[in-house]
Amino acid sequence: MSSCDLYIDQIKQLVTVKGFSQQAARGASQQEIGLIEDGAVAIRQGVIIAAGPKKELERAGWKSGAGRYLNAGGMIALPGFIDPHTHLVFAGSREEEFVARLRGEDYLSILEQGGGILHTVRATRSASAEELFRAGKKWALRLSEMGTTTLEAKSGYGLDFVTELKQLKVIRELNQSLPLELVPTYLGAHAWPEEYQADHPGYLQFIIKRVLPEIARLKLAEFCDVFCEKGVFSRQASKLLLEEASKLGLKPKLHADEINNLEGAELAAEVGAVSADHLVAVSEKGLKAMAAAGVIAVLLPGTSFILQKGHYAPARQMIGAGVPVALASDFNPGSSPVGSMALIVSLAVIKMGLAVEEAITAVTINAAHALDRGERLGSIEPGKQADLILLELDDYRQIPYYFGFNTVKVVIKKGRLIKGG
Amino acid sequence: MSSCDLYIDQIKQLVTVKGFSQQAARGASQQEIGLIEDGAVAIRQGVIIAAGPKKELERAGWKSGAGRYLNAGGMIALPGFIDPHTHLVFAGSREEEFVARLRGEDYLSILEQGGGILHTVRATRSASAEELFRAGKKWALRLSEMGTTTLEAKSGYGLDFVTELKQLKVIRELNQSLPLELVPTYLGAHAWPEEYQADHPGYLQFIIKRVLPEIARLKLAEFCDVFCEKGVFSRQASKLLLEEASKLGLKPKLHADEINNLEGAELAAEVGAVSADHLVAVSEKGLKAMAAAGVIAVLLPGTSFILQKGHYAPARQMIGAGVPVALASDFNPGSSPVGSMALIVSLAVIKMGLAVEEAITAVTINAAHALDRGERLGSIEPGKQADLILLELDDYRQIPYYFGFNTVKVVIKKGRLIKGG
Repeated sequence: MSSCDLYIDQIKQLVTVKGFSQQAARGASQQEIGLIEDGAVAIRQGVIIAAGPKKELERAGWKSGAGRYLNAGGMIALPGFIDPHTHLVFAGSREEEFVARLRGEDYLSILEQGGGILHTVRATRSASAEELFRAGKKWALRLSEMGTTTLEAKSGYGLDFVTELKQLKVIRELNQSLPLELVPTYLGAHAWPEEYQADHPGYLQFIIKRVLPEIARLKLAEFCDVFCEKGVFSRQASKLLLEEASKLGLKPKLHADEINNLEGAELAAEVGAVSADHLVAVSEKGLKAMAAAGVIAVLLPGTSFILQKGHYAPARQMIGAGVPVALASDFNPGSSPVGSMALIVSLAVIKMGLAVEEAITAVTINAAHALDRGERLGSIEPGKQADLILLELDDYRQIPYYFGFNTVKVVIKKGRLIKGG
Repeated sequence: MSSCDLYIDQIKQLVTVKGFSQQAARGASQQEIGLIEDGAVAIRQGVIIAAGPKKELERAGWKSGAGRYLNAGGMIALPGFIDPHTHLVFAGSREEEFVARLRGEDYLSILEQGGGILHTVRATRSASAEELFRAGKKWALRLSEMGTTTLEAKSGYGLDFVTELKQLKVIRELNQSLPLELVPTYLGAHAWPEEYQADHPGYLQFIIKRVLPEIARLKLAEFCDVFCEKGVFSRQASKLLLEEASKLGLKPKLHADEINNLEGAELAAEVGAVSADHLVAVSEKGLKAMAAAGVIAVLLPGTSFILQKGHYAPARQMIGAGVPVALASDFNPGSSPVGSMALIVSLAVIKMGLAVEEAITAVTINAAHALDRGERLGSIEPGKQADLILLELDDYRQIPYYFGFNTVKVVIKKGRLIKGG
């Protein structure tokens, strides 16, 4: 008898995304989702030990040897959603700015009125760690209710020493206390802080000499990200920061070519970034560089939708160029108060022309690779961590179709039921 | 002491939409939402008996005389969402068509392949009443989870005698067995059935002589609706059907000017329709006729979003012309697999330029008027039925802003807690 802690069957469609642990990060076909009809999964000590057709698993004795049995009742199963780009931890909210922007006010005049990112920076600086933790916990749980089991979370609403560390410590505390995996990224280079408006070189030196070494010493972040954009951080400044961060062991990520093409994609390739994010204004040359260097594109259709500029990242062109595409929510209080990965799949399919299968690989295995966790997360196959979700749908193609419904009924993280069941 | 069954306080913002029971249907300002900070509500026998600032209600003794006390914990309260246009009861689903359309296939070629509305008609004809009931119940409960407390539900996926009555009987059964109010509408004129493709006059006579009298006799529908559109039902045919229905006591509604302007708005005014729905292609003249006749515009931004034609109904022009605007999901398996009214508010604000306040009146009091229930539903004020929802938000303007989150934590229908609490 084969013993396991949890056995799940009556899975109408088991979407494994199997076999792409290696290849996905090199732009393997995003159309292959490893679909199994009438599937079953066996889990032991937080790890998947068997996944396949129910009949095969029954024959192998997994059902009879199960400590706990879960009947999925004809639901469909997917790897838990992985959200590789969020700004989860912040204080305040900016619905007034959202309303003003829709009335036609431009971002510059909103900034002048004290709105925009610096609004959130002020609120986050003023908030206590406890307040930030409470808010972060509320949002993290809302995301997990909708099927997210792993998410990246960036700092970048402090910009000063104390607040950046406060944000990263809150992320660590959330990671330790919630049944979710949070991946911490330092984004001190998110905007120029008010106190350094007249001394940009001074802020770069402050990050390099003061903040980065302390973050590295305390192991508070796994990645370092920079907002490379006109009026924000130049290509040169971004390169300097990511290289310094790399020396200290922080892996590079980049907000690249979001509004203007600053050859951010090329820079991401040059510094060996794990991912380049946004890429609405990326060039063909930039995509070639990314494909050659194996940089993953993290696309954020929620942001394009909320900002209503009419531009979305050229996802089809990326897939054509052999760039692996991941999707993220970009959850943040300014440009993307959106947190549902199913909704992100909808937007990617409707607005970017991704096939449903491409969008599914983009929120599972490719998103895992965008967080350097492709070996451990992102698919349902033996040896992978047991992160999976059950959706009350008849077919995986209904995920983008039933727009705005939360059909995620069961969430399993590391073999543990954290919703439903 | 003032006695009540249920007393709710600690409501950070109580959005009453008060005072518009009469005026809203005549295009009163949709900006007035009757906002009360730190509010409370008292309910007795399913009816609101007091609503206002907490201090006033406490002074009047409502709290001490309450049978049950509910602390809203700083949530915000709104009238329960009213969804005045859905096709709730159907069999099958059409994600394949959704995917095909996004790949660029046009609706005509989808129809030729057996897709489109006739796909749903075949599935609905084949389904038993029990199957339809189960499916309808699942969807109705999903909508109520997201705050909908009253919804219209149309027939129109049978087109023949047996199936149209089957659909309407299922709607009646759902209305009797669920803690929601369903408003039944007969939409036999939704499409030309296959068996009458060569005999359109025959189908009209079939509706008039056979179906309508039976529906009226059994009191299976409160409204009669017609899809007035090029290639579907002409202005003349629509007029005939609505007039015959009126004679039998069914109040007219109209799918008007959705794709082509057939002067549907003018027809709605002429026949005294309670609402004209869709109106993407409405003319200024049509709006004037609606305003003069007091016809409510029911707009369906989910449909425009899913169909991605780039056109939305001219909501601002309507409000300018004095036409009261309501919003609905149009929930159906073809053009709008969307059911969340909060998401509809988001789309209306982002895509149609409605102010948040206008969108809120559009899903509450004006939606109630679109179902001829403005006297009983749609606002939180003494004498109205106690249908209200609590949302875990700090400000009502966060409803469209936190896009795709379901923040509805408590749903109260006729004084009864049907979610949360």
